[in-house]
Formats: sequence, structure tokens, C-alpha cells
Amino acid sequence: MASQVDSHPELTPGEQLAVKWYPPAYDIRVESVPIPTIQHRDDAIVKVKLAGLCGSDLHIYRGHGGFQDPLIFGHEFIGEVISLGESFTPNATDRPSLYPTLKVGDKVVSAFTSSCGECHFCRVGFTSRCVHCLLFGIPILPGGQAQYVRVPKAGGTLFAITGPLTTISEPSLVLLADILPTGIYAALQVLQHPKIAPVITGVAYPFSGWTPLARLEGVGQLEVGDRELVLAVVGLGPVGVCATIALLDMLASTNLSYKVIAIDPNESRRLKMQAIYEGMEEKYKANGQFKVEAIEEGKKVVEGWTNSLGCNAVLEIVGNNSALTLALSLVRPFGLISSVGVHQAPPLPFTGRECYNKNVSFDFGRCPVRSLLPVALDLMKRREDVFGAASGTGGGEAEVGGTRSLVDKIVPIGEAKKYYEMFDKGECGKVLFDPWV
Amino acid sequence: MASQVDSHPELTPGEQLAVKWYPPAYDIRVESVPIPTIQHRDDAIVKVKLAGLCGSDLHIYRGHGGFQDPLIFGHEFIGEVISLGESFTPNATDRPSLYPTLKVGDKVVSAFTSSCGECHFCRVGFTSRCVHCLLFGIPILPGGQAQYVRVPKAGGTLFAITGPLTTISEPSLVLLADILPTGIYAALQVLQHPKIAPVITGVAYPFSGWTPLARLEGVGQLEVGDRELVLAVVGLGPVGVCATIALLDMLASTNLSYKVIAIDPNESRRLKMQAIYEGMEEKYKANGQFKVEAIEEGKKVVEGWTNSLGCNAVLEIVGNNSALTLALSLVRPFGLISSVGVHQAPPLPFTGRECYNKNVSFDFGRCPVRSLLPVALDLMKRREDVFGAASGTGGGEAEVGGTRSLVDKIVPIGEAKKYYEMFDKGECGKVLFDPWV
Repeated sequence: MASQVDSHPELTPGEQLAVKWYPPAYDIRVESVPIPTIQHRDDAIVKVKLAGLCGSDLHIYRGHGGFQDPLIFGHEFIGEVISLGESFTPNATDRPSLYPTLKVGDKVVSAFTSSCGECHFCRVGFTSRCVHCLLFGIPILPGGQAQYVRVPKAGGTLFAITGPLTTISEPSLVLLADILPTGIYAALQVLQHPKIAPVITGVAYPFSGWTPLARLEGVGQLEVGDRELVLAVVGLGPVGVCATIALLDMLASTNLSYKVIAIDPNESRRLKMQAIYEGMEEKYKANGQFKVEAIEEGKKVVEGWTNSLGCNAVLEIVGNNSALTLALSLVRPFGLISSVGVHQAPPLPFTGRECYNKNVSFDFGRCPVRSLLPVALDLMKRREDVFGAASGTGGGEAEVGGTRSLVDKIVPIGEAKKYYEMFDKGECGKVLFDPWV
Repeated sequence: MASQVDSHPELTPGEQLAVKWYPPAYDIRVESVPIPTIQHRDDAIVKVKLAGLCGSDLHIYRGHGGFQDPLIFGHEFIGEVISLGESFTPNATDRPSLYPTLKVGDKVVSAFTSSCGECHFCRVGFTSRCVHCLLFGIPILPGGQAQYVRVPKAGGTLFAITGPLTTISEPSLVLLADILPTGIYAALQVLQHPKIAPVITGVAYPFSGWTPLARLEGVGQLEVGDRELVLAVVGLGPVGVCATIALLDMLASTNLSYKVIAIDPNESRRLKMQAIYEGMEEKYKANGQFKVEAIEEGKKVVEGWTNSLGCNAVLEIVGNNSALTLALSLVRPFGLISSVGVHQAPPLPFTGRECYNKNVSFDFGRCPVRSLLPVALDLMKRREDVFGAASGTGGGEAEVGGTRSLVDKIVPIGEAKKYYEMFDKGECGKVLFDPWV
């Protein structure tokens, strides 16, 4: 079931180019490695068209990932199926829908972790903790910053780009592998949380959301002044920008009154966020205020907006303890910290007493991308005002690298070392590697 | 508006008996102190009938509360209003309902923290973080282990026991001040949480609960096997027992299939929990399994029940790092830790990576008792099979100190020192002080 495997003219047949990381840290080499092959009947081999460099790659790059062995980087990629395992057969109608339908030559985007689509976690929608879950770009699962990549449990992991979806630009599709779903996840955790439910529903706790309790008399109804939602996004890297876009989009759909502040110390990131916001259609901004600020200025804005009560919730999209500490300082009592940053070895920077005294809730962890991919695609299709300009969905400016673009550059894979260095220093935004130029 | 103030025959007029704690730790003295008086127009003075000794008192008792000054202990009390500030007038119809209605001589139970009933937090139902919130039993707000207690913001803080409620036994009423609402809070945080929503609603994430997202096609429906809820309660002190009772009651009302394990290393606590469960009417147990185990046995039960996936959620009702560590070890990925224990100065015992890797959610903090008091009262009235026997609601055994009783002993306030020592060592269960014998 395999189509032709292309090798780079300067490589030995059967070899490909890949971005390798060597321990202990900061050591990136673009090398020739064997082209992967089917190892299990549920595998697919994908010929990579574009692969993203992600903020969470930096944890490994800096040596904080705990890895002792070299690895091939990359957990965001799109491409074309060139080979499928035996499980892909029209008879496999009792399995996830790609097993009977996916064909060699199909265009696909992969979630940044593999997921079987068949275990308890996958069935419930928590695909990022599938019992077979593996992150692409670790020693036991080589990543997609390469010409070819092996995708395990491919019928559960991949998403086929067919029909009208094929008009979406390739840079935009790469955003579906991680950063846009992760941004949606951060925002959705806030708006679905019971601590936020009184504001959403206008009913006081404990009858503010679904409850197994019998409804008692005298349940408080909230007045308008108590129903304004004040939220902060900490971190405006590519995921933080996506989280802000998703949050504002969801808020616009609710008719809630809101104030959102997005905070980042990096001026170029703030300018990007501001430009994207300014490009949004007015109907998506009607019920709220939005500001972009550096850290100290952001704290003052929250104080002013809330009479020093603090935010209802903070979206923490950085993944270190200074971001968590800032989040706790910004959130009000009975508030929520929705943390999608990839955290590392240090202990959490909070005492139990601080958490108790603020009645704070936390949501930690990895986005179930495969479950949220259709939602992300829906957002991308609906919001031409953002994604047209930001990464080229077809209409709009379609300009990679523009002021409002979520993708800053598409560069040859051979320049990976340089762009890792620049990204690490905050000197560039979202970069995609083209493995074929 | 004040009625007669009774002084103990052996005390100077204007003086009363109170349980005082002296720093640094373990120093309890029952002393004569001045009877409190109205200090603010929203105050009430309550003549205490019974006052509870609570597990969270032990944090202060052991010197972990951070207090440098002596204090009068006690945040659970019931009694009779003997004096009211000027705010209590029939004209105060624009304020919380007790301001125009409460009278000298009325029987009241107090929430364990004061709350105004008028600020943003109170209106939303998060009364335990009222902007005027004070815990009873700290240096600036003397507690209720005394003959009299001053209640600030009394029109928001107190709950009047009138009409049919007057048939509820006084020991039961004391449970409404803290431990029963706190147990309900721990359980409700679990059942209202979005991580649990797929099991509750039978719909896969992200459409498992309320969402601002437009519903997309192909939303997964859960099969029966994915809808079993496996929950653990860590800690079977009086609050843990109340949490277990509340949790089982709520689960019975949902028709969900469930397995609940309650874990405590203390055998006498396990026996109490088991006896209360065995006394429950069968209709409240029909859909689930329930076990009570020590720690290591409990871990094995969870492994067996879940094929080593872990619990959907853990109710942490202890308030120290070993309980939190046990909770994290018991919970499955995408699980929740509902922590109502009063935590102290140590940092949380988790790394960011552990939290990320398990996609764990936490809810920390103090129960908003005043908001949950009507719910607790409803539970108490409905569940004669538990509360009749457990603390004497009127019917049933009404036997304080019985095998199934939530209240073990009512003792003279003069014996406070001895009972603090015993409670600290786990040698007695829930003790109430009678300040008048």
C-alpha cells in the first residue's frame, strides 16, 4: 500500500533529512536518518509538507525535558499519507472512521500526540491521555521536523483534510496540530468551570450550573454588575495568541459583558496580538473591552477594572513558575487558573495555605487535540477576519509573515539550528519548516 | 434590645467562661473573660448553647495557624440571640432578610465565617470569601467556645432556626455551622466539575456540559462502561464522614453507577463510617458499591476497580501534604482533586510536570457555608436514616455517642483541655462543649 518514497538528491536512498536534538541541551543538527517504515498494522507513514516549531519544544531544547538520548524534534506537522498498515481496510468499520477510509495520497494533519480513539480516555474525549498516547518528538517516537514521520494508531491520531477543507492553506493547517486547539482548550476550561458558572448563568452558587441537588427556594439571581467577566491571558506566544482569539470568539457568542487583558513582557508579541485584535470584525468585540499590556501595567489594569478583587480566571499559557505566580496574584478568590503551559520539574510555587485562602481552582495539562480539532477547524473557517490574514485560510491577505499573521516564517529545514536559537531568545514568532527546500 | 445576660455564679458579673489558646502551641485554658458587647450596628450577641471542636481547630492548636496572640477558640456554635445592633429594624427591608426579622430570643446557627450577604462574593454565593469575611476563633474575632459570642455582619452570617426547624436536635444543628456544608461542598465540587461531566451527561468532551461552542456533528455518546464513576474520599474525620454521606446521597439521586471508597488509617473512624453506611436505607445504595479501607488496602481497591486507571475524582478532607500526595496517586488522568482540607504553610507537594502529565484539576478552599446551609438543612431533614441516628434530628435513635452518631460526646466546657488533647491524638470523634454545665 506504499507509494513512491522520495529521497533528497544528496542523500543515500532510504535516508531523509530530520532535525535532531542532542543532549544535554541547545544542540540541534539537521542530519540524514533512515526513512521510517510501518512497524505496526495501525501505523501510517506521512510525507511531511510543513512542520511547526513550538514553544514547548524549547523545554526539551533547553535540556528541561529529562531526556538522555538524542531525538528527532517536532510534534506539529501536516503532510500526505504514503504508506498504511494492514489495519487500513474497508472492512474495519468497527474501528475509528479513518481505518476503513484513509487512502495513500490523502492529506492529513496529526494531533501532536498519538491517540488510539478506542480506549476509555479517547471515548470520553480526553485523547491526550489515551492509554497508548505518545508525544511526537521524543526518543521512542521520532517527530515531524523531518521529511517523513511514522504515525502510530494513525486511524485515531490523524485527521483527514478532504473536500472543502482542502482550500485551507497549509500554514493554517499546521496550527491545528497543537496551538489552536490548545488555545481553545485553555479558554474552554474557563468558560465551562463551575466557579465561572454564576456569571454565565446569572444564578448564585450552588444552583449556578448543573447540580444533583433539589432546587431550593430563594436561589439568588445575579444582577448585571455581578455578571461581568474579567479574564487575563498570561503569555502571548503563538498559543497565547490562539487562546486569546478563542476566548474572545467564545465570549462574543455568549452576549456576556467582559473585560480581557492579555499580558506579555515581549513587545513584539504584544504588537502582534494588538494587530490581530484590531483586524477583527466589530461584531466580535461588541460586548467587551480588550487590552494588551506588559506585566506591571497589566496588574494595574486588573486592579482598576476589578476594584482590586482580581480576575475571575487567568489563562496561563507559558509553563513556568513565574507565570503561575503571576496568575495567582491576578486571580480573585474563588477564581480559576487554566494552565495549559508545559510545566517541568520544579515544585509548584504555592503553599497549601495560599491555595486554601484564595479558594483557587487549577486545571493543568495537555490539550486533547484530537477531540478539539473539529472545533478548531470550525473556528478557523468561521473567522476569516482572523485566520485569513493570520495564516492564509484562502481569502483575506493570506500573507505569512504579515503583521497579523500567526505564522511568521516558513524556512528550509536546513536552517533549523538558527531558528531554534532565535525562537529561544524571543527573536521570532511562529516558524514552520519546509523539509523539501 | 438586649435581654438578660446570665453570668456563671462563680464569675464576676460581666464575665464569662471561654476556651482560650495560648501560643506557641498545645496550651488550652478555660478562663474568665469579658462578655462581648455590640461594637457595630450590624452585630448580634449570641448566648451559646453548644459549640463544636473541629478538626481545623487542631491546626491552630498545634501552632500551625501563624498566630502570635492568644485567642478564644471555636467556629461552630448554636445559641440564642440576646442582643442586636441598631441595623436590626423592620425598616431594613433592603438588606439581607435577617436585618428586618431577627429578634432577641431567636435560636440561630452561625456559619463558621462571618459574611455580609451584600458584597459581590456574597451575592454570587461565595460567602466564605466575603470582603468582610472573618473566621470565628482568631485574635480579632473571638470564637464560640464560650458562653457568649459577638457575631459581626449578623444579618448575613446567622441562620434563624424557626418553625419546623426547631424540632431538629441541637447537636445536629451544630453540624450545620461547618462540617455538613463543608462535606457537601467537597462532593458538589466533584459532581459539578467539567472533568466529570462526560460521565454525568453521557456525552464526550468538549460537548459534555454547557459550552459556548456551536454543537458539531459526530459528538461522541458514551457507552455504559465509560459512565461508571469511581471516587475516593481521603480522610474520615467528621467532615470526611459528612462528605461521604453527601456524596452518596447525591449519587443516589442521579441513577449513575458508581463505586466509592472512603480511606482513613484510623480504625475507629472507619468503623463509624461503616456503621453509618450500614444504617442507610437500601434505596440510597442501589446503584453503587461502597467500601471503607485503610490507606494501602484502599489503593489496592482503586487499582482493582479501575484496572489501574485511578479514580475520576478524590475528595481530600484532611488538609496536609500526605493527604494531597495520596490523592494525586489515586486520581486518574483528567481527574479532579476536591480539597476542602485547611492547608498550612508548606509548599504544595507536586511538581508542575506531575500536574501537567496527569491533566489534574484542583479545587482548594473554604466552604461557603452560608450559601450551602439551606442545602445542608435539606439533606439533614430528608435523611432521617443517617441524621436521626447520627445526631438526633428528632426521630430515630437520637443518641449522641452511639455507633452511628456524628457527635460522639457533649462535655462541659471546663474539660476543653482534655478533649483537645484526645482529639489531637485521634482518641475521640466529634465533641461539643456545653458552656453552661
